[in-house]
Parts: sequence; structure tokens; C-alpha cells
Amino acid sequence: MADLQTRYRAEKKSFLDRLNSGEVVIGDGGYVFALEKRGYVKAGPWTPEACIEHPEAVRQLAREFGRNGADVMQAFTFYASDDKLANRGNKAQENYTGASINAAGCKIAREVAEEINGLMAGGVSQTPTYLSGAGKEKVQEIFEKQAKVFKENNVDFLIVEYFEHVEEACWAIEVLKKTGIPIAASLCIGPDGDLHGVSTGECAIRLANAGADVVGINCHFDPQICLDAVQLMKDALDEKGIKCHLMVQPLGFVTPDCNRQGFIDLPEFPFGLEPRIITRWEAHAFARRAYEMGVRYIGGCCGIEPYHTRAMAEELSKERGFLPVASEKHGLWGAGLKMHTKPWVRARARPEYWKNLKPASGRPYCSSLSKPDAWGVTAGTEELKQKKDETTQKELEALYSKADKN
Amino acid sequence: MADLQTRYRAEKKSFLDRLNSGEVVIGDGGYVFALEKRGYVKAGPWTPEACIEHPEAVRQLAREFGRNGADVMQAFTFYASDDKLANRGNKAQENYTGASINAAGCKIAREVAEEINGLMAGGVSQTPTYLSGAGKEKVQEIFEKQAKVFKENNVDFLIVEYFEHVEEACWAIEVLKKTGIPIAASLCIGPDGDLHGVSTGECAIRLANAGADVVGINCHFDPQICLDAVQLMKDALDEKGIKCHLMVQPLGFVTPDCNRQGFIDLPEFPFGLEPRIITRWEAHAFARRAYEMGVRYIGGCCGIEPYHTRAMAEELSKERGFLPVASEKHGLWGAGLKMHTKPWVRARARPEYWKNLKPASGRPYCSSLSKPDAWGVTAGTEELKQKKDETTQKELEALYSKADKN
Amino acid sequence: MADLQTRYRAEKKSFLDRLNSGEVVIGDGGYVFALEKRGYVKAGPWTPEACIEHPEAVRQLAREFGRNGADVMQAFTFYASDDKLANRGNKAQENYTGASINAAGCKIAREVAEEINGLMAGGVSQTPTYLSGAGKEKVQEIFEKQAKVFKENNVDFLIVEYFEHVEEACWAIEVLKKTGIPIAASLCIGPDGDLHGVSTGECAIRLANAGADVVGINCHFDPQICLDAVQLMKDALDEKGIKCHLMVQPLGFVTPDCNRQGFIDLPEFPFGLEPRIITRWEAHAFARRAYEMGVRYIGGCCGIEPYHTRAMAEELSKERGFLPVASEKHGLWGAGLKMHTKPWVRARARPEYWKNLKPASGRPYCSSLSKPDAWGVTAGTEELKQKKDETTQKELEALYSKADKN
Amino acid sequence: MADLQTRYRAEKKSFLDRLNSGEVVIGDGGYVFALEKRGYVKAGPWTPEACIEHPEAVRQLAREFGRNGADVMQAFTFYASDDKLANRGNKAQENYTGASINAAGCKIAREVAEEINGLMAGGVSQTPTYLSGAGKEKVQEIFEKQAKVFKENNVDFLIVEYFEHVEEACWAIEVLKKTGIPIAASLCIGPDGDLHGVSTGECAIRLANAGADVVGINCHFDPQICLDAVQLMKDALDEKGIKCHLMVQPLGFVTPDCNRQGFIDLPEFPFGLEPRIITRWEAHAFARRAYEMGVRYIGGCCGIEPYHTRAMAEELSKERGFLPVASEKHGLWGAGLKMHTKPWVRARARPEYWKNLKPASGRPYCSSLSKPDAWGVTAGTEELKQKKDETTQKELEALYSKADKN
Repeated sequence: MADLQTRYRAEKKSFLDRLNSGEVVIGDGGYVFALEKRGYVKAGPWTPEACIEHPEAVRQLAREFGRNGADVMQAFTFYASDDKLANRGNKAQENYTGASINAAGCKIAREVAEEINGLMAGGVSQTPTYLSGAGKEKVQEIFEKQAKVFKENNVDFLIVEYFEHVEEACWAIEVLKKTGIPIAASLCIGPDGDLHGVSTGECAIRLANAGADVVGINCHFDPQICLDAVQLMKDALDEKGIKCHLMVQPLGFVTPDCNRQGFIDLPEFPFGLEPRIITRWEAHAFARRAYEMGVRYIGGCCGIEPYHTRAMAEELSKERGFLPVASEKHGLWGAGLKMHTKPWVRARARPEYWKNLKPASGRPYCSSLSKPDAWGVTAGTEELKQKKDETTQKELEALYSKADKN
Repeated sequence: MADLQTRYRAEKKSFLDRLNSGEVVIGDGGYVFALEKRGYVKAGPWTPEACIEHPEAVRQLAREFGRNGADVMQAFTFYASDDKLANRGNKAQENYTGASINAAGCKIAREVAEEINGLMAGGVSQTPTYLSGAGKEKVQEIFEKQAKVFKENNVDFLIVEYFEHVEEACWAIEVLKKTGIPIAASLCIGPDGDLHGVSTGECAIRLANAGADVVGINCHFDPQICLDAVQLMKDALDEKGIKCHLMVQPLGFVTPDCNRQGFIDLPEFPFGLEPRIITRWEAHAFARRAYEMGVRYIGGCCGIEPYHTRAMAEELSKERGFLPVASEKHGLWGAGLKMHTKPWVRARARPEYWKNLKPASGRPYCSSLSKPDAWGVTAGTEELKQKKDETTQKELEALYSKADKN
Repeated sequence: MADLQTRYRAEKKSFLDRLNSGEVVIGDGGYVFALEKRGYVKAGPWTPEACIEHPEAVRQLAREFGRNGADVMQAFTFYASDDKLANRGNKAQENYTGASINAAGCKIAREVAEEINGLMAGGVSQTPTYLSGAGKEKVQEIFEKQAKVFKENNVDFLIVEYFEHVEEACWAIEVLKKTGIPIAASLCIGPDGDLHGVSTGECAIRLANAGADVVGINCHFDPQICLDAVQLMKDALDEKGIKCHLMVQPLGFVTPDCNRQGFIDLPEFPFGLEPRIITRWEAHAFARRAYEMGVRYIGGCCGIEPYHTRAMAEELSKERGFLPVASEKHGLWGAGLKMHTKPWVRARARPEYWKNLKPASGRPYCSSLSKPDAWGVTAGTEELKQKKDETTQKELEALYSKADKN
Repeated sequence: MADLQTRYRAEKKSFLDRLNSGEVVIGDGGYVFALEKRGYVKAGPWTPEACIEHPEAVRQLAREFGRNGADVMQAFTFYASDDKLANRGNKAQENYTGASINAAGCKIAREVAEEINGLMAGGVSQTPTYLSGAGKEKVQEIFEKQAKVFKENNVDFLIVEYFEHVEEACWAIEVLKKTGIPIAASLCIGPDGDLHGVSTGECAIRLANAGADVVGINCHFDPQICLDAVQLMKDALDEKGIKCHLMVQPLGFVTPDCNRQGFIDLPEFPFGLEPRIITRWEAHAFARRAYEMGVRYIGGCCGIEPYHTRAMAEELSKERGFLPVASEKHGLWGAGLKMHTKPWVRARARPEYWKNLKPASGRPYCSSLSKPDAWGVTAGTEELKQKKDETTQKELEALYSKADKN
């Protein structure tokens, strides 16, 4: 650490220039989950109206990611499409349009990106409209509305993320491509392919062919499974001779027991995932493996908190030439523990200790793995069709009863 | 929820008036651990210079606790004594005095307390000076310096917390008592008594006799073990006929495998505790049991995040007559999940689901319990004597070697 | 091992002479559970009519215990009282009297005891008559019938074992004492005392005062918990200055999660206990701790198989001066693995390997601990009254319903 | 159970006639592991000289398997080849020839087969000679010596089992085929193929083409993994249109964490496998799935004890038309518990209870899965070459050191 300064990125350089020159770009983490815990986002709809309601809270979280090593400030615009804001009784749309939320998110992200000499990105994700089986035209209308805001706000690049169906992601790329802004596209799938059965490798090819500059995986699976999936993408692209950068933004939860649909199906989702939260050392190991695989856009999704971002940036500090600012308040591999009052805690101030630790759960009445729910539904299935009205008590009871039988 | 407004506390009333009238006072959570993860506090020294360096980060966390139900804004002054700021190579003291940090902490806490119509408290905790075996006079000098700042800042009440030895806590109470401000005193011990072997019940009696208005337990153990310890305190006070309010501010980690010294001794401390983080439902159960035991000052310590505070306030919302503001973004017992896109997640929008969930760790190569370190040292033991100099590499290697033999 | 002959005990010496001279007497293991797995004993009634129906099977098991180090051949007479043979629809009593089974058991035990130069014992255990609340006279009549057979068969000593209530055990001792034969008495209780609330220490005093030559614990708890209970007995006897030998015959299952009533209450009892079976190395550790505590009659109960007995005898082979015969087919601490074909298995031919092994369960969907049933019944409670008739379907359904509600 | 008699098989019918008419043939269990625990077989060499040294012990175990439902009495001749009896310092060969052991094993098996109206089989398994890289001729010489004894003893069929390399198994079939006796051939591999990389499906084809009448899997993996492997065999045979009966004789241990080489590589092998022992209910589920897949020779290998065999026979009692004799001492699905003294145990006398039970390990300091050793050696590798001399201390220390580094 002696030879590495703790600082923000020294110079501003474009997204693609960085990737083309082999630099690592560190992404930020999971706004939705972090802000849910802080009291600004509602689990269920998961929509980002906090950008308007509590900009100071969103800005503080963004600063924390920046301070802890992120190069990218992604506007907090997840699920900010008008159909989602109005879905199943969500009141957000009564007060705000998707466009106004997207604009507010861009403003915050740009402000913090300036502070850290970082990049600012806008993003789109899958839509209730697609899940309900509406066609391409209706779905692309939604993306067009979002693209317009991002273009006006002069984002450095665009993120197409959290798609379970590569088809919809390609529709999104097609729309966003018209802006002329670079596109990073990631699906929320694992090694078993998308929810229509397209293989993970084939998905990468389709994304690249649709015009994505960077392809990869985000959300739904743990760091190691996401990297397994990215490896399949890389292999498929290499085989076809397609040149494309790679990205990965995994969950901050361990999920070895997931099925194809990822952590949504685990019984612990979303309010009992604590025992699965990854440690900072697991974030270190993730960043190293991603780097060695050739992935250069390395970040996080749901469950990734600022200290996980810091761990990634610390792991890759030699490659990057600097440590994140917040490492002043950490010390590599627990070095700060040298100042602890208890001698046996000072004895933990070294990498070997943390690399070998197998953390206990403290939960002897709980198992280590769960059987995921497996309702076998996908886009177009009746149960997956979305609607504006609140779910009725009768509908809920039918669901409870079905769940209890599983 | 229909009959309960989400709002801040409607009227300002003094700390003791509230407790005397049987009201629940909800404490805030763990600043040190939360700010460590956000990148503002260094694990090892754990000192609170962030009050000066990054007031916006401390203020945001305080607001989150308030928004999620806390009535108390405790100034972030943990370990803000000059001897701790200078201990074992900590650089904080080169830049700031304890007094300046304490004053900055008070300013932030007062600001947010005003916003939420809450109470503001200042706090003192155990000192390296005591651990190193210095006598009563030297230790009390430290508390006097801190008391002076709290008095000047007009705190609503004083907290004497995180003491492993009741003797030192009583010395602190003796000093603070002179301010005439009400005192809440809690030890970081479990049912096995303090580190000098004084029983937990006897500790309560000594704290009350020394002048504490509220006595109880904070930190070092999980919610259930802390309540077991408070029960012992209550029984001892009842037996002696001593009238005293009760408080509890436990860890946000499950620690069934601790020994007398608590979570510090667990191999996972402090950087591998993730699988032990309590769920919001465990926070619900804790608040209920605490209330039923007659505890009225109910809060949290290390590991308690804003959503845990919200869970406590939601659990006790009927008794308090209102929900925390952030419940607008939650919904009791997962009710917000009614708006989820996936039907099996909507099927989780009910208390029975979450009350019965036994969350899996996702970690099949890890055990559920750990053997704690047990070096058997306490105040005065050579290995526990503190010093201003950095720990040398040679000293560290001796510790590593001792640790590896255990 | 080079210096220790593998052989049976060289000379015949009386039970009390052995104990008085400080020799270790190794008991045999659990006939009921072993023969249930082999297909000769029915779980539920657990009665020993196999002594008459399949003497070759009983004899073979006895020989295995002898060959693996046991000094004691305990006649397989557990629950061989007429009231138990007729309880709840058990058909055994239609064909055999308790007396005929006891006699057949003695014959087998004597035969094998001769082969190994060992001791032969007869035993009595708690009765349905007592559990149903009948008085002392009726209960003692049962023990008298059993004592008569043991006296006729010239047993070397008598075992009073598997009593949940010290009162009934003392009634048994009172009866057996009249034979003039030495008595070893053990309760199936843990550190929390008997099921009427008599403390474990007090139980020991009562047993000794009633005339037992050896007192201790058998069944219901794992080796470590049984030893914790024996320690309480030892402390109580020492305090009163009562001289008495100590015995322990624990389960071959780990049961850290039991309540006062032991493994009967665990949800896994009796057909899902496999993951709790102790390893031979845990039997080693048990024998060592028992020896160091001063216990000299060391054996096993339910779940203890011949290889566990061998492990105890191997652990204490230096103290005893010889190894059990079956060690020719073992080798201390896995030494036989030197002959394995796979090199990494040969690398396990050493004590350090096995002492440090923490065996995995291979069951990631199962927890490590269970919540025991806790119906809170004891002798005299309506639900515990026994009867000759089969349990009716209606009675069973009431039980199923009660169980499902717990 | 009312409509099913408990009895031995009523009529004697040939092995192939039974299979050809679709009858289930139930195999016996694991002699080597069961007799190791009883004190007659040495772990490491694992050779069956007990047939000569202690025929009564082998006979008793055979009777137990028969009594509990096995139709097959397999002579206890595992590893009874002269090269194995002399391997790495094994003394067995000084006293007995392979031929004499095989003959003694046949005699016992025939005796018990007569008692139960069952089938008697002889078996060969893989040889140190093959592992050491000797050629086909030398390996086949060994099988010829064994075949001669089996032919003389008029076995009902021959078993070629426990081969890690399909090549050696085919060499064995080639030799045994000359006897004109039906052959059942099973490899100790899983779904990942044999140790030379031949796929599991291809292995089945080669075995059938070499002349096996029945093909399948035995040992090395748990029941579910073995069935996964048999499914691959079935699919491959079906695709090629090869008609062949299927067999499966799995471990009695759960091994989800194995690699290609099976349970030998698990750190718990062979003296810490207890927590992995399958319950009788897991044996039920195994027998059902095997039957439904079309497997008709269903038995067990290492770790399968008589009560597991009983569970298989009870599960398939309707299909077979009778219950095993030992079911008189069991009762389907725990029905015997109706006679238990404790009411909450009587509440367990039903299938739903046991089908839903997830048995706890009682071991909170142990993990649920292990990382297997993975030395990556196979036939011909230097470290796998076998020799007659004892492993020297120096060789052992080199192994210990290599193991500790892994």
C-alpha cells in the first residue's frame, strides 16, 4: 500500500477508450437493495422515484460508491419506465413520469461523476409490457422514451441490463443504438441460458450482433456463477471471431442453489438473504477471477455495497495504479486491525487469515442450501402477465395456496 | 397499517418523561459498522473523526435511522477520547482533539434530532487508559473532558455504554452525574457477567446505585442473548427493590457460539460476519420480546442498519400509535411484495411466510458455529496494555504465531 | 502397537476386585439398536425376545463386542418385564414370559463371557407399571421376578439402568440388594436432573445410599453430555464423602440439542439418527475423558456398535496393557490405511489426520441442530399411562394432530 | 401390510429367468464395511480372509441380509485375488491363497442361499496388477484363477464389479464368459465416466458388447448419483438398440460433493463417514426411483446394512408380493412405533412424518459438504503403482507432506 496513492481517477477518458486500452473500469453497486435498506425504495415495485423524493440519499450512496472505487456513476433509473411505475397498484406514477425520474437520476449521477472524474451512464431494463406478451413495437416505444432523456442528459454510455430474454434486450439495443452512444449490455441469466431457452453463448452473439460494444451478465446469480456464464459468452464470441468487451455485475449474495431463474426463486428473496451476503474477501476473489478471464468492466448489482466495491478496487489496485480514496479508512487485507485493542484481533491483520476463513452462519437450525421455487413461468405465461390494478386479496389467496402446496 | 399514519414523533417530550409514562423510546443503530462499510470509519481504531471529515455522510446515516423509526439521535462520539485517538499508531489525533470530534458529532445529531422531533444524546465508552491499568483518577479525567462538551452542547441525555468492566462504568457515571443530565448506562456483557467476574445482576445494581436512570446491555451479543442478560439485570433490581428503567441495544448479528467476551472473539470478527447478520424479522422478534420484558429503551448497536430499526418500529407501531416515515417504502410484513412481477414472490406478502422462514446460508462448505478465540485476558493483563506507538512487525508476528497455535 | 499384544483379558477377577484395584472395565454396546438394524428387534416395544427366537444373532453380536474389547457381557434382557412384553399390543408376551427371556439372555451372555474370560451381568430397567403411576409394591414385584432369574443364573453383577426417575431406580436397588450380588446403577438422565426434578448430584447420592456399588449415567445423551452429568454426580458424592465407583454408558449419537428428556424427543428418533452417529475418533475422545475423570466402568448404550467399543479399548490399551483381539483387523489410529491402494488415503494413516477431521454431513438441505419435542409429560401424566391394548387409530390421530401443531 | 405375508422367496428360479420375467432381484449389502465395523476386516487392504478365519461372522451377516429381503447371496470374495492379498505388506497371503478364500466364501453363500431360497453369486473386482500398468495377459490370469473356483462351486451367476476402468472390466468379462455362467457387470463410476475418460454411456455399451447380461453401477457414489449414472447407461444402450438388464448397488452414504473418483477422495473416507450414512427412508426412495427407471437388480454396496436392504424390500413389497421376514420386527413406515411408551414417538408412526424429516447432524461445528482430495492419478500413474512391500515411513512422510499442502 506504501507505493499506491489513495485517490480518485486522475484523468477523464472516454468509456471505450478505457476499455480499448485494456484499463479496468469498476462499476458501482446495487442502488435498489441498498436504498431499500436505507428506507427510500419499496421492495416489490422496486422503482426509483427516490431520485426526485430524496435526491440527497441517492447522491450520498453514489458518493460512497465513488469514494470506494467505482469509476461509473450509473443514474438510478432501474425500472423507471411508465408501465412499471404504474404496475400492480404502484402509486409512483401518480406523482412522477418515467421521464422526470430518469432526468433526476441523470442529474445526480452527473454531479457525482464530476466529483470523482468518473463516467456517467443511463440504463434501461426489462419491461412489464414484454412480460405480458405485447409485441416489439409497444416495447420499443418504452425504450425510446428513456433513450430520449439519456441523450438529452449527455450520458457517457448506455447500459442495457437485467433482461431475462435476449430478444427484448436486442430490441432495446436496436432503439438505443440510434443515439450513437456506446452500449454495454448484460442479461440477468446464468450458465443455463435465457428464459426462452437460448444458450448463454448464443445470447452473447445476439447482443454483439445487435450492436452492443460490451456484453455480459448482471444480477440474479452470485459472482462465481456469473463468471461461469461470462466464460460461456466469451467462448462463444471467440469461436465466432466476434470482438467485444466483457462485463460482469453480479449479486452480492452466494447462490449455489439457484435454478435457471436465479435468486428471485430462492425462498429467502428478498427479505431473508442476509446469511448469503458475500464478504469483502469474496469480492476480492471475484475481481481477481474476472480480471484473469479478461473481463474489464467489473462491478456489482443487488447486494453489492460500497465496501464490496472497495474490495474489488483494492484487489486490482496494482493493475490500476491507485487505491480508492476510502482505502485510507481500510488498509489492504485488514491491515487496520493492527490498531485494535485486543491482541487476538491484531493477529488477524493479514491476508492468510481472511483468505482461509470459512465464515460460520451462527444459525444451527437453518440449512446451508434451499430448494428454489420453480413455477416454470416465463414471458407470455398467464401468471406472468402484468396489470395496472392492485393484486386483489382473492388473487393473493390463490397464490398463497399454490405456494403452500409446493 | 390502514389505521396507522407514517410520521415522525408528533411532540417533543423529555427522555425521562417518556420512559416514566411507559412510552417506548427507539434507539438508533450502529454508526461504526455502517460507516466502516460506507468507507468513513477505519476498522481497528474505530474512531469517529468522520464527524469532522465527512459530516454529510454521518448526517445521512442519522437521517436514515430517524426516518426508519429511531427517536434518539446519538452523537457519533464512540471512542472519541484522546487516549483512543492516539492509540497504537492511530493518526486521527494528529488532526483532531477528542473535544472537537465530540462537538462536531453533537452538532450533527442535534440537527437531525430537530428534523424528527427526537432526542439527542452524547456518549462515553471504555478507555484504553483503563484497560492498561491506570487508576481511577486518570480514567475520570478523560470522562470529564467529554462531559464538558456534552454539557455545552446541551444534550437531552447521556449514554454510558460499551463497558466490559462495571467498575469503569461506575467511574464514568460518577463523573457524568455532576452534569445533572439523565444517564442511560449499558455494559457490553452477556449473561456470564463482566470481565472481572461480577455477575450480570450485580452489575445492574452497581450501575443503578452509581446514579444511572436507565440500565441495560449493548453490543457484543445477539439480540436474544442481550435480552437474557437484561432479564438477569431486571431480576436482580426487582429483588433489591431498585426502580430503574431498562435498555437494550444489541448487535445485528447472531452469536450463539460466543463466550463471555462476545463477538470480538469469533473468528469472523470483524470482516466475515455477513452470514450472521440478522434479518428484519429477527429484529421484529427482538423488539417484541424486549417490550414484553418491560424494556422501554430499545435500539441497536454494531450491525444494526436502518432497516432493522424500521422493523423494530413497525413491530411496536400499535403500541406507539404510528409507523416510521420509511414504512411508506416498506409495508408491514412484506406487504409491498404484492406489487412484485413474479407470482411466487407475491405469495410471500404475508407474516406467516417470513415468521417461518429459516434462511439458508448458501455456504455448504462453512459450518454453522465457530469456536471463539479465548485468550483469557482482561483489564491489566500485559497483552491488553495499550500504547501510542504502532504495533511493530515483530510484535505482530508473535501474535500471528500465538493465534496459529490456538 | 508393537508393544501391546492383542488378546482377551488374561485372567478372571471379580467385578468389584477389578474396580477396587483401579482397573478399567469396558462395557459392551447397544444391543437393542444394533439388533433392530439387523432385523431381530422391533423399534417401538424394543423388547428382547430375540434371545429365544434367534439366539445365534444375539450371540454373534455379543462375540463382536467381546472381540472388540468389552469385558462385560450384559445379558440382553432390556425391557424383559412382563408388563412391558404385553404393553400396547406387543405380541411378545403371548409366546414368552419375561422369566424365559431373561434366562435365555443369561445363557448366551454366560457362554460368550466364558470365551473371553469376561464378566456376565443381568439388568433391570424402568417399567410401564411405574410410568402409569402404580405404587411401590407393584413395581417391586416386577423386579423380584427378574432378580430371581439372575440369581439362578449366577450373574457376576447386576445392572440397574435406564431409569428416568431415581425413585424407581432406588426401589429396584432395594429389591436386587437382597441377592447379595454387586450392583451398578445408572440413570438415563443428563445434567438437568431426573424427570421429577431431582438434581443429578442428588440422584447419585440416593443411588449410593440405596446400596449401589457403582453409580452413573447411561443412554439418552451423547458421550460428552453424559460425562458432564457424571461429573455432577462425582462432585456431589465427593462433597458428601461417599465412596462409590463411577460408570458411564452413553449413546453413540451426538445430541447437543436435546432437552432434559434426551434423544427420545429429537425429531430424528429413532429412524433418522444416522447423521448423529459418533465416529470411532469421538469414541476415543470419550474414553480418554472418562478415564481422566476417574470413571472406571466405561461402555456404551444405544448406537454404540462394536467398532466404537474397539476404539475405547484402543484408546485405553496402554492403561490396560493389551489391545482387543479385533485390533489385528484395525491398527491404531488408522494405521491399516498404509496398505490402501490410493496414495491420498495412505496419507490418512495417522492420528493428527483423524483428530482434526470435522466430518461433513453431505446434507446441505438439512440443518445441524433440531428443536426437540417438548410435551412436558412424566410419570403419572395421563398421556404417559401405559396399557395392554393396541393404540387405536383414533388415539393415533389425536397424537398426530397434537404433533403437527407443535 | 395386512395383505402381505412376511416370508422368504417361495420358489427357486434362475437369475436370468427372474430378470427376463420382469421380477425385481434384491441384492445384498456391503460386507467389507459391515465386517470392518464388526472387527473382522481390515480397512486399508480390505481383503476377505474372514471367510476362513471367522465363517460364523460372515454367515451371520449373510443371514441378516437374507432375512431382511436380499435374494442374492454374493460370496464374500471382494479383492480375493493373490496380488491384492499380498499388496503393500498385507499379511493375509502368508496364510491363505486367493483360491481358498474364494472357495470358503462360496460355501457360506451357498449355505445361506439354500436357507432363503435365494441365488448365489461369485464376484471379481479390479486388481492392483492393472493399476500398476501390467498388460492384459497378466490381469486375465488373475481372473482365470478366480473363475475356476466359482465354476467349481457352481455359482448361479457371476458379478464383475468395482472397476474404475471399463477396459479392465471387459477383460474380466472376456475371461468369465468362458464359464457359460450369466454375468452381471457394474463399474464404480459416476455420471462423469470412467477414470480413463470413457463416458458412462459408452462404458455400458462396451460392457454389454463384451458379453455382460446385466450392466450397471456399484459403489463409490450415493444412491441418487448412481441412478443418474445408470440413466446415462440406459439412454446409451437404448440409443444403440442394445437389450441388456440394468443393475445398481450404491453406497449407503450421501456424497453430493464427490468428484469423478467418488467417496474415496472425500476427507471422511473411510473412518469419518458416519454423518453421511443414509436413513432407511432414503433407501426407500432409492428403491422406488430405481424401479421406476426400469432397473431390476437393486442392491447395495459399502455402507448398506441389513436394515437398508429391508427398506428396499419393503418399498417394493407390493411389486414383489411379499415382505421380508424381518419386517415382522419392523412394520412398514415405522408402524411399530405405535407401541412406544412416549406419546410423541407414537405420533411418528406414519409415512408423512418420515418422508418429510430432514435429519439434523447434531454437528454445528462441521460443514455440510467437503472438498474432495483431487490428486489426479489413474491407472499407470507412478503414485498408483502397487507393490508387495510395506509402505515405508519415508514414503508415508512424503505422502503426509503432499496431503498437508493440498
